[in-house]
Formats: sequence, structure tokens, C-alpha cells
Amino acid sequence: MSVPTAPAGVTDGSTPATVRFVKGHGTRNDFVMLFDEHGALDLTAELVRALADRRSGIGADGVIRAVRAGSLTAGEGVDPQLWFMDYWNADGTTSEMCGNGARVFGAFLEREAGLDLSGGLTFATRGGERTVTALGKGRYAVGMGTWRIAAAVDGADAVVTVGTVGPDSALTDPVVGRWLTRPGLSVDVGNPHTVVALASQDELAALDLSRAPRVEPVPPAGSNVEFAVVLGEGGADGQRRGVVAMRVHERGSGETESCGTGAVATALAVRAWAGPGAPDVWDVRVPGGEVTVRIDADRAVLEGPAVLVAEGVFGL
Amino acid sequence: MSVPTAPAGVTDGSTPATVRFVKGHGTRNDFVMLFDEHGALDLTAELVRALADRRSGIGADGVIRAVRAGSLTAGEGVDPQLWFMDYWNADGTTSEMCGNGARVFGAFLEREAGLDLSGGLTFATRGGERTVTALGKGRYAVGMGTWRIAAAVDGADAVVTVGTVGPDSALTDPVVGRWLTRPGLSVDVGNPHTVVALASQDELAALDLSRAPRVEPVPPAGSNVEFAVVLGEGGADGQRRGVVAMRVHERGSGETESCGTGAVATALAVRAWAGPGAPDVWDVRVPGGEVTVRIDADRAVLEGPAVLVAEGVFGL
Repeated sequence: MSVPTAPAGVTDGSTPATVRFVKGHGTRNDFVMLFDEHGALDLTAELVRALADRRSGIGADGVIRAVRAGSLTAGEGVDPQLWFMDYWNADGTTSEMCGNGARVFGAFLEREAGLDLSGGLTFATRGGERTVTALGKGRYAVGMGTWRIAAAVDGADAVVTVGTVGPDSALTDPVVGRWLTRPGLSVDVGNPHTVVALASQDELAALDLSRAPRVEPVPPAGSNVEFAVVLGEGGADGQRRGVVAMRVHERGSGETESCGTGAVATALAVRAWAGPGAPDVWDVRVPGGEVTVRIDADRAVLEGPAVLVAEGVFGL
Repeated sequence: MSVPTAPAGVTDGSTPATVRFVKGHGTRNDFVMLFDEHGALDLTAELVRALADRRSGIGADGVIRAVRAGSLTAGEGVDPQLWFMDYWNADGTTSEMCGNGARVFGAFLEREAGLDLSGGLTFATRGGERTVTALGKGRYAVGMGTWRIAAAVDGADAVVTVGTVGPDSALTDPVVGRWLTRPGLSVDVGNPHTVVALASQDELAALDLSRAPRVEPVPPAGSNVEFAVVLGEGGADGQRRGVVAMRVHERGSGETESCGTGAVATALAVRAWAGPGAPDVWDVRVPGGEVTVRIDADRAVLEGPAVLVAEGVFGL
């Protein structure tokens, strides 16, 4: 499909009459993408909320604008020619980075700017520079920066309590409700995570993540919480790799079908628990699909799919 | 904005490469709208689910195609020149009608077919013919057909049990959870409803509709359940009117921000409870906005807003 000629938005500071958008997702973490090379669009929290509203807007977990760093206040001090991933949460706040979003950002730049990302593209974010590389067949790899596991690791440094539901959850007598309490491991991958190992996929499926798990001691800035079940090891491509299933409760968002940093945190935790000789590559199965995490000494790379599904004009 | 030139879809029966769409909503009940006058689009359950998926598609409660009755199998026996509202639920099944969707259908026909609906337009649905009338300022009235209150009415013919939540719902001890049991009134407006009167807006706000309320005796085909609080009476425009706040749990969908037939059922129930001399016009405040129900001897009309918010092409 060729790109329509509608402008990205007006430049006089008022609410734009129309905004051209592309919608895309990575393992069902979805985004409204805006191409705005020269920063002509007055992107406000109000406009972001309007676009991201799933019922009165297009609907997305976040809004990502592609803009040259030199055209954005947040890009000060950065090579002005770098592309900047201007990431906004659905609630109108900004965030440093989003792993799934960075893959979609890569696919979007290939389409809109005609770039070839097979050799990698370094771009700027509020959390520093990152690199996205096209792997072919709609897959992209994103460098996720440095990581850190809680200092005193001998398996756990937290206790997590979470609700569970039975097969018949409708109006189950609340007295019958059960709670699961398990040790958790704090992992920092730029944002805080607490990873909990579960014994089986049945246990994973029975979690009630409609309410936030309780983490103790209470993390000062809250925590994303991942529940993980190691499924085994593969190695078809000559490199040993672990396979782990995961569900995630995102701080402030509730349960989501995928969380890029959560996948990285999960891979780091299960690798730490497995001890010396554990694989450095982990396939992480999330409700929205599967991503792969490659772990270096102090860095991690997240690989997975990115799909652009629609384009259009918002504001009729 | 002018309409792009992309076709509505291919005609050879395969999955369309691209589908042109408009997104709209009525009191936050949202729809992907397809203009397909001559039935050229092979609209399948699979395509509907893909379009309606909120993460990997556009996202909507339903998909509505505007097509001439003569171009559709479901339009057999109907004046072939009538516009047919071809309504699909997000799960790929079809439904007879949708009150909020019918308003958006009207706005969509005005835009796409250049119609003037100020004098009313009769169109066909799987549930029979309906009429939509443009009231100006983005508001539309839709005839909702006949209604029927459960035969043996002296206020209630059912018992409804529903969960409630406190202000702190995260990991509240399940033993502290409370249940509310109240009488309910069965109302048929083409689909089944059970309406429950609550004492206060605080009680309404405390409902936990994340799980289905229990209705007894169990309705054979299930029931939508509305919880209503009468707020008082107005009458600024010379016609007496009641005002009622409502939340709804839709059979098969969970809590929604608006339900057109639910608003009609609620107005009918509170009017019946109020007894002789009750207003025939009710403003029904739902989480997604406000609609107005006008009740005749055996028919009801639903009025409310319709907004078209975006247009584009699905399938890149």
C-alpha cells in the first residue's frame, strides 16, 4: 500500500485536525506509530491519550513517534541526525524504552524512511542509545542495555503472594479462593522486575493476575512481576537454548500479553537459578507469542517479531 | 478528509489483501465499519476476528458492514435496495442488531453514501427493519422494536447475586469479600435482560462486574444484567424525564461501558417500578456516556451520540 498524502499534523500548536498513523504490534504489545521526521507534530499527552484509547481512539499500549533527535527537546545532546524513538504510554506519560516497541519502531522506519536495518541501526531513546537489527522474515533484534540481578542472590530476595482461580471462576465462594506464596528474585533491566519460579504450567495457568501480586519487602518504586516455568532445553540450531513460559503483571498496566523487559528479566532469573553451565539463550513463551533473549556478560538482546497491520488517518 | 481510493476488498473469495475501514463509537461501544455497497467483500468470521482484535487488529466490539440487502444472502426477502446493517460480534459470530451500532451505522451512511438522515432512513437487519434518524450535532435516534416485561410483574421475578469490592481491591483478604443479593426484573427487548435496582451510587460503584452476576432461576439462554440507580427527574425541555445511572454485565462480553438494549431494558424496568405516572423518557447514564430512551406503548426509541474517529486500510 502506498502512503497517503495526509500530513502528520498541523504545526501551529493547536490540536491537529488529522494525524496519519500506522498500527503495529510485537507479540501483541501494540502501538500507534507516528512518522514525524522534522518534529512538525505537536504531540501532547492529550493527543496520545486520544490515539491510545481503545474505544474512542485507535487503541494501543503506547504511542511511538519517529523523529530526528535534533527536532526534539528530549534529543538534546544527541547526534541530531539520529532517529529518536519518542515513546509515550497510553496514559500520556513518557517512558525511556520499550523492547517490543523498539522492534515495531524498526519495522516502521524500514517502511516509512526506506531504511535497510539488516546491518543494524543505532537510534536514540530517553534511556540512551539502542540498536535494532532486522533479522528477516519480520523479526528484529534489539539491544536492551545492561542488567543487574539483586546483589545478594542465592535464589531469592523477595516474597511474592498472588491469587489463584479455579476452572470455575464465576462467583466461586470467596472462602474457597487460594493464595500462592513463593520466593522471588529482583532483576533490574532498566526498570524493576521480580521473577517467581512456579512448578508447573497448571500452576501458571491458575494465577489470577487481574489483581496485582504483593511483593515483600515492598519495592520503593513498585515492580513488574513475572511468573516463570522452565519447560526444558532445545538446541536445534547448534546453540544450547532454554525454553521458559512466562506470565507478567506490569506495574501500572495489569496483566499484559507480552513485556520485553519482563522476558529479559525472566531469562536472567531462570539462567541464574540454573547455575553454572546454563544456556545464554532463552526462548520465552508469553501469552502473545514468543521472544528470544540472548545474554552477554552484562548485556542482553531481545529478538522477536514485529508486524505493521494498518495505516490511516485519525480525526475525521 | 477525503476517502482514499483503496478498494473495500478483493472479490475472488480469498482473504483480502487490504480492507478499507472507518472506526467509530457510540457511548464508547466501538465498531469497525466497512462500506461494501455491492457485497464485493468476502467478509468471513476469520476476517472479522482479525479486524476486531484489539492488539493485532484495529480493535472493536463489533464489525458492521453497510451493504445493499440485495447483495447479501441474509437480505433475502427484503427490498433489495434497502441498506443492510450486517452486524458481526468481535468473536466472528453475527447478531441481529446493536442499538449503539445502529447510530454509528447511520453516521457512517451519511459519510460514505452521502445520505441525509434527518428525515429517517429505514434499513434492514437480521432482526428485521429498523429506522435511524439524524437529530443533529452528532446525535441519532434508533427504533428498537417491541419490548416485553416478564409476565408476572410485581417488581421482580428473579434473584441476582453479585460480588462487590472495597476501595482497596488489590489482594483484599477473600474472606472479607462481600456479596450483594437483590431482586431482579426480566425484560425482553429482543434479547434477554435482568434489571436490578440498587440503593445508591456508592453501591453501584462498589460492584465487582469482572465476574458474571448469578441470576436465579437461571435464564435458559443466559441474561445481560443491568444494575440501576434512579437519580431523579428532570424536565427542562418541557417533557418530564427520569434520570437513571446504570452499569451492565453483557452476556458473553463481561462489563461494557455501554449497552443500547441494556439502556432500554433499564428504562423499562425503572418506569415499571415507578408505577403509573412515571416518565416515558429516561436519560440513562452509562460509564461510556449518556443515552436517552423514549418509551411508547409497546416500542422504544434509543437516542445518543455517534462519532466516526478514524479511517484507514487494514492489511499492509
